[in-house]
Amino acid sequence: VKIKSRIKDYSVEMIDDIFSLSQSIKINNTRFFFIIDEKLYSIYKCRMDKFVGKSKKILIPAKEESKTLPYIMNIYRKLFDNGFNRNDTLFTFGGGILQDISGFIASTIYRGVRWIFAPTTLLAQADSCIGSKTSINFYKWKNQIGTFYPPDKIFIDPNFTDTLTDRDFYSGLGEIIKVHLMGDEGSFDSLSKYLCTKKLHAKSDFTQMVSNSLKIKRSYFEGDEFDTGRRNLLNYGHCFGHALESASNFEINHGEAVLLGIGFSNQVALNRKILCKTEFLKIESVIKPYYPVFDLKSISIKQIINNMKHDKKRTDKKLVMIVLKKVGVLEKRTDIEEQEIEQIYSKFVEYIHE
Amino acid sequence: VKIKSRIKDYSVEMIDDIFSLSQSIKINNTRFFFIIDEKLYSIYKCRMDKFVGKSKKILIPAKEESKTLPYIMNIYRKLFDNGFNRNDTLFTFGGGILQDISGFIASTIYRGVRWIFAPTTLLAQADSCIGSKTSINFYKWKNQIGTFYPPDKIFIDPNFTDTLTDRDFYSGLGEIIKVHLMGDEGSFDSLSKYLCTKKLHAKSDFTQMVSNSLKIKRSYFEGDEFDTGRRNLLNYGHCFGHALESASNFEINHGEAVLLGIGFSNQVALNRKILCKTEFLKIESVIKPYYPVFDLKSISIKQIINNMKHDKKRTDKKLVMIVLKKVGVLEKRTDIEEQEIEQIYSKFVEYIHE
Repeated sequence: VKIKSRIKDYSVEMIDDIFSLSQSIKINNTRFFFIIDEKLYSIYKCRMDKFVGKSKKILIPAKEESKTLPYIMNIYRKLFDNGFNRNDTLFTFGGGILQDISGFIASTIYRGVRWIFAPTTLLAQADSCIGSKTSINFYKWKNQIGTFYPPDKIFIDPNFTDTLTDRDFYSGLGEIIKVHLMGDEGSFDSLSKYLCTKKLHAKSDFTQMVSNSLKIKRSYFEGDEFDTGRRNLLNYGHCFGHALESASNFEINHGEAVLLGIGFSNQVALNRKILCKTEFLKIESVIKPYYPVFDLKSISIKQIINNMKHDKKRTDKKLVMIVLKKVGVLEKRTDIEEQEIEQIYSKFVEYIHE
Repeated sequence: VKIKSRIKDYSVEMIDDIFSLSQSIKINNTRFFFIIDEKLYSIYKCRMDKFVGKSKKILIPAKEESKTLPYIMNIYRKLFDNGFNRNDTLFTFGGGILQDISGFIASTIYRGVRWIFAPTTLLAQADSCIGSKTSINFYKWKNQIGTFYPPDKIFIDPNFTDTLTDRDFYSGLGEIIKVHLMGDEGSFDSLSKYLCTKKLHAKSDFTQMVSNSLKIKRSYFEGDEFDTGRRNLLNYGHCFGHALESASNFEINHGEAVLLGIGFSNQVALNRKILCKTEFLKIESVIKPYYPVFDLKSISIKQIINNMKHDKKRTDKKLVMIVLKKVGVLEKRTDIEEQEIEQIYSKFVEYIHE
């Protein structure tokens, strides 16, 4: 998958064993500095150590607290103290959090350095690795600081998903389902067949779905990298999803929240007759088995609405939501009412728990 | 002056009284948040207050300590606490330091917001306002963190230079002389005439020189915004200049250091017979009267060389210097020897003080 960017063109390569790469990616006159998810490192220690060799490595815990400026200052410090220079390359192994941190650093140290990213979660492989966004939390403002900066190269090794917990694995499904609903009829149908027939034992079988996801996502942001128009539609499932994720104190993870956000958005669209009942039911039959098990009754709708008001995409007094008209056709609505959300939420909670 | 950028195209407008602008720059549905140099604000208080109106303003002291991440976190905090949103506009009044701080913030808050810049020092007007660079200090590493992010619009009001101290004013001359040496013969000749005949009483007479400087600078970075090739030549006078500025503990200011850096680089070029004696003397006759009064003997050449080794443009073991072959023709040399620098420095110090 090749991607055009205002900043620099880049590409994604699916690779069966990333640890066999070491020789071929060496670039003249450049050293690698590795940034690795702490937990991932402990799982793949032997192979990682061999791959990293004598290069410096920095281990980072994949948690929201790592995505803060004080934490990032520690990493700048380690890089400078170890003589990291403008011709050196950052190489990241990890999921979305590691991507956000190292992308922000890669874009701001010497105003941008070479950066290779090997996403290791399904969520990062199928979604976040492309699109150039990096995000940092600032106090209570989640993801409100950041830059646009793509990696120079992305290597996706599907084997990494074999060591994900089931929960993290299914979290990745949220974004995969989202973009397949945003592609054409054919793409959603093929995903449906896959989800309904496979037992998902061999997680690495997902290679095709991952690469489809990236192609559909690309079609939404190429030409609108800085997110001023069409790219906004990728926020489908996120307006409500983000707010829910936050209101649950992140006990619901991102992919789970996005899947619930898709379901909720579809209810809103159904209620407004934007989405027809047949299409709605067809989609539900595919996604309902993947809704996370979580007691939604414990989450206050007032808190969710309050969070939706802080959505950085919102510019007016009403609430914003991306809704599906039919598979592949979406629309941004800026006229969503608080009352409407409240009413649909109580029905939605019952539906999810039925 | 219109400038093409990978990030966004933008333009510079010369304007005789910026405070008369207030109505014409209002954009629908956007609020302004002002970031203003503390000292400048005290000088122009009445007019500033009228211009700012009910908008929020943040005053910042123009010193190196303000260009740090902890300080910038305070500003993020003030912006978020005051409800700054992604459709709002930052509006900066100040020189290079204010530009660096607010440019970094504008590029990282919500991954980039609208930003208007009114440079108020000669240095910022004639040089730094274009070219998209923003810089932050990190401990001892000066300007090593930053982004590429141009303002959406730059308004240059030459009247601001009337309230600069003489020293700050002459500091701006360093960069003006630099780019005029990098333009064609004609541009340097017209600057020479100007510098040799005018008494520089009416500082705002410089409008033409400012606008020429921006056009010459633009010709060096358009097409190489991210500084991987030709743009590097703009570092003329800076390889030695930065190192000197730092070694003097910033008692020599940036523009003064750049002018001395030009003089020094020309001595190196003369010594290597890259620059001919006639051309060298012609240039010296114009710039020598503007060298700052400073006891260079008090600065250790070892310290300067040590700083040159940390130049972020350097990638090899030898030192780097941009040298002039003749007016308008420059070359990057990566084979400069420490011993060469030491020998020429002792001659240079005598020459400056003679």
